[in-house]
Amino acid sequence: MKRVLSITASALCAALAIPQPAAAQDNPAARAAREWRQAREPQLLAEYFEFLKIPNVSRDTVNVRHNAEHLLRMMEKRGLKPRLLEVPGASPAVYGEILAPGAAHTYVFYAHYDGQPVNPKDWATPPFEPALRTARLDKGGRVVPLPAPGQRMDPKPRANVKFIFEGEEEIDSPHLDKILAANKELLKADLWLICDGPEHSSGRQTVTFGARGIQKLEITVYGPNRELHSGHYGNWAPNPAMMLAQLLASMKDADGRVLVEHFYDGVVPLGELEKKAIAEAPDNDSNLMREFGLARVDAGGRKLAEMINQPSLNVRGMASAQIGAQAANAIPSTATAAIDLRLVRGVTKEGQVARVTEHIRKQGYYLVNVDPDEKTRLAYPRIAKVAVDAGGYNAVRTKMDLPAAEKLVATARSVRSPVVLQPTSGGSVPLDMIIDILGTNTIQVPAVNYDNNQHSANENVRLQNLWNAIELQAALLMME
Amino acid sequence: MKRVLSITASALCAALAIPQPAAAQDNPAARAAREWRQAREPQLLAEYFEFLKIPNVSRDTVNVRHNAEHLLRMMEKRGLKPRLLEVPGASPAVYGEILAPGAAHTYVFYAHYDGQPVNPKDWATPPFEPALRTARLDKGGRVVPLPAPGQRMDPKPRANVKFIFEGEEEIDSPHLDKILAANKELLKADLWLICDGPEHSSGRQTVTFGARGIQKLEITVYGPNRELHSGHYGNWAPNPAMMLAQLLASMKDADGRVLVEHFYDGVVPLGELEKKAIAEAPDNDSNLMREFGLARVDAGGRKLAEMINQPSLNVRGMASAQIGAQAANAIPSTATAAIDLRLVRGVTKEGQVARVTEHIRKQGYYLVNVDPDEKTRLAYPRIAKVAVDAGGYNAVRTKMDLPAAEKLVATARSVRSPVVLQPTSGGSVPLDMIIDILGTNTIQVPAVNYDNNQHSANENVRLQNLWNAIELQAALLMME
Repeated sequence: MKRVLSITASALCAALAIPQPAAAQDNPAARAAREWRQAREPQLLAEYFEFLKIPNVSRDTVNVRHNAEHLLRMMEKRGLKPRLLEVPGASPAVYGEILAPGAAHTYVFYAHYDGQPVNPKDWATPPFEPALRTARLDKGGRVVPLPAPGQRMDPKPRANVKFIFEGEEEIDSPHLDKILAANKELLKADLWLICDGPEHSSGRQTVTFGARGIQKLEITVYGPNRELHSGHYGNWAPNPAMMLAQLLASMKDADGRVLVEHFYDGVVPLGELEKKAIAEAPDNDSNLMREFGLARVDAGGRKLAEMINQPSLNVRGMASAQIGAQAANAIPSTATAAIDLRLVRGVTKEGQVARVTEHIRKQGYYLVNVDPDEKTRLAYPRIAKVAVDAGGYNAVRTKMDLPAAEKLVATARSVRSPVVLQPTSGGSVPLDMIIDILGTNTIQVPAVNYDNNQHSANENVRLQNLWNAIELQAALLMME
Repeated sequence: MKRVLSITASALCAALAIPQPAAAQDNPAARAAREWRQAREPQLLAEYFEFLKIPNVSRDTVNVRHNAEHLLRMMEKRGLKPRLLEVPGASPAVYGEILAPGAAHTYVFYAHYDGQPVNPKDWATPPFEPALRTARLDKGGRVVPLPAPGQRMDPKPRANVKFIFEGEEEIDSPHLDKILAANKELLKADLWLICDGPEHSSGRQTVTFGARGIQKLEITVYGPNRELHSGHYGNWAPNPAMMLAQLLASMKDADGRVLVEHFYDGVVPLGELEKKAIAEAPDNDSNLMREFGLARVDAGGRKLAEMINQPSLNVRGMASAQIGAQAANAIPSTATAAIDLRLVRGVTKEGQVARVTEHIRKQGYYLVNVDPDEKTRLAYPRIAKVAVDAGGYNAVRTKMDLPAAEKLVATARSVRSPVVLQPTSGGSVPLDMIIDILGTNTIQVPAVNYDNNQHSANENVRLQNLWNAIELQAALLMME
């Protein structure tokens, strides 16, 4: 989600052009940002495209660093005194600041600049060759050329504003804790504003008070120690693909309810304000179903907004031998499922992994951490390797009635109304570390369209969302 | 399994060197073949290696034709008057013959020269760069250089012997029926001798009277019309990988027994001679389990030799999105399983496909032949595409007490004793077409070692099996 970040950087230029905020139903910083933006759309887009061209898959650390350096230069131009926050073995976080003499408050604007792996063959245009389209790809959007440049302005915010852009979010922030711990004083604030994630699917401006946590793991089960001819050994040697299917099938019922024992135990219930927010949020579920081509959903009649306040178990990917023209008439040797567990308040990553692990054991599996040797294979009829990802983090939910939260919501409402308030987002950002290590609360102010194909082919951002985000961010940058 | 074929061609040279067969407990043709072979091992191996170097993956039709042309040249050198049997759209079958004036009998030697897809990264040495090893790879076998050449001899068999080498067996012989129909008179015989497949795992010489049939199919199930962020939609949008897991799990119990209704109905029971053959075959199951690293098998206590007389359902491969470093935090859009159904007498390919299809329907799926459009997606909560492979064939089992069968078994016993008699092989060869179209019975005389890694990485042939095969084939070529 490197797009969000670019929006933030652009918005900064706009916001800081405003001498004094005025009282108005229409936020003056946002209005000024709009006029500023309208005068220089071509150059904003050109700069955005330059940034998007740099591949940013998290594990491609060489290019991720190019992204960080590019950000550094963008921030230097804007006088943000940027620097890289480095810890060993990690892609850098990029830090910048504008300190206001005598400021009473400090806000940190967070976003991440790394991305998920891409499969270019699934994309209509190459993933790192950004294209401007007249509409959504699946609505017949055609590529059109970019429009041409303007000037920059000087910042004068009234609180201290700081920026931090992380480069390992899409691999579950394995080093963010170290970066935070090494820069505690620098990064402490009244509030961290998290700019990741999509707005509500209704298209309304959205403020989100928490995020599900995440823990990824991979399960591998074992058949024969090498692929065997499926005719000669085909209903005699156990088939690991079938074993994996049976194991996964034991984890969920036909309606998607997780059958792992205790999976939903301990979930912290929603408070009154949170329930009210969910009840008031526009119900867009049937539109989404049409949009995604779904005649049914897993929730058993419950709203999406409710479901994202529950823990989940999702099969991210599954593989055993080959399909299609590459498939051989063989019994595979192994089968693997990649899984993500989404967490909510009251359900920890360690706890959820333990529940899933225990479930696998109860299905008769002997658990290993590495591929089994011959002795182990011959000792246990069913063997599963559970590889728990080193990253992962717990869920957080900031209280909706904190003063800083109320100020932020009022600011958002002064920019574009109505505002959808969400107790939590379905997606995950490593907010627990910020709260645990810095003692600072977080609130998300997402920018991009819900139908941005996040984490899949043809990822995109709607231009109007970019412009809206500039206005919102301008107003937030001018908060007292 | 192009290796077998090379053995046949080599054996021919040996067998035909023998002027008259003598009565002996040791078959004279085989003994002469041994002496002949021992005098020219280097040149036999060199010729074999030249052949193995030509890639032969069935769908790589350009290289498959190179194989056919190479075979043609090998047979020309031996005076076999070879030619290609062509039908439109097919890789050619290679035909050759030696007619004996006044012969009372005709034997056709069949083998196929195409291979399964290979994944070079799984191979210790490249798949099409044959290597001579001192022992099995997993027993520490090292590559050693090839040893140097001799002369050839003139054929004088006493029956008409004909050779046919097929180039599409590994994709289920989609054109063999047309090739047979177009060459009925040419290919009619007292018996077809099928040289494919491995010998019994005890290492004893093996004669097999039938083969399981095969029908392949692929099942694809559908989730959202594009990958969705697993946080935002993760326990709401249905996950096709989980749906596929549940569907596959519904097809087999924990012991591998197929739960598809009527799956085992109609199986023709084994006769007395066949039961006796199974009872007398060496029981090598526990060795195989150790060999394959298996602490349990699916048969519920029954012998492998029994199991291959039952129909089977095997998951050849399974895929949904990505695993490992390429996995994204997304709900996949589709999930696919490649399946092979092995058939036995009394269970047809059409019948078995209908049973599996009906099972899928009973799990609540709407069945399609092509990827569903949006309208279909929105009309049906569960959609499965079942793509039935165009190839496929039924099982056959030749009677063990036919005169030609008894003659063949006696010949085999005169070469190397004891001989394992198998009513059927687990693997499939398109024997049903030969019987249906030509009215000619088939018997398999396999040559290669059971642990040849057929259909998987590091496929190999044990050198002694090559030498044994030359002797067996020499004796068979001299049958009256």
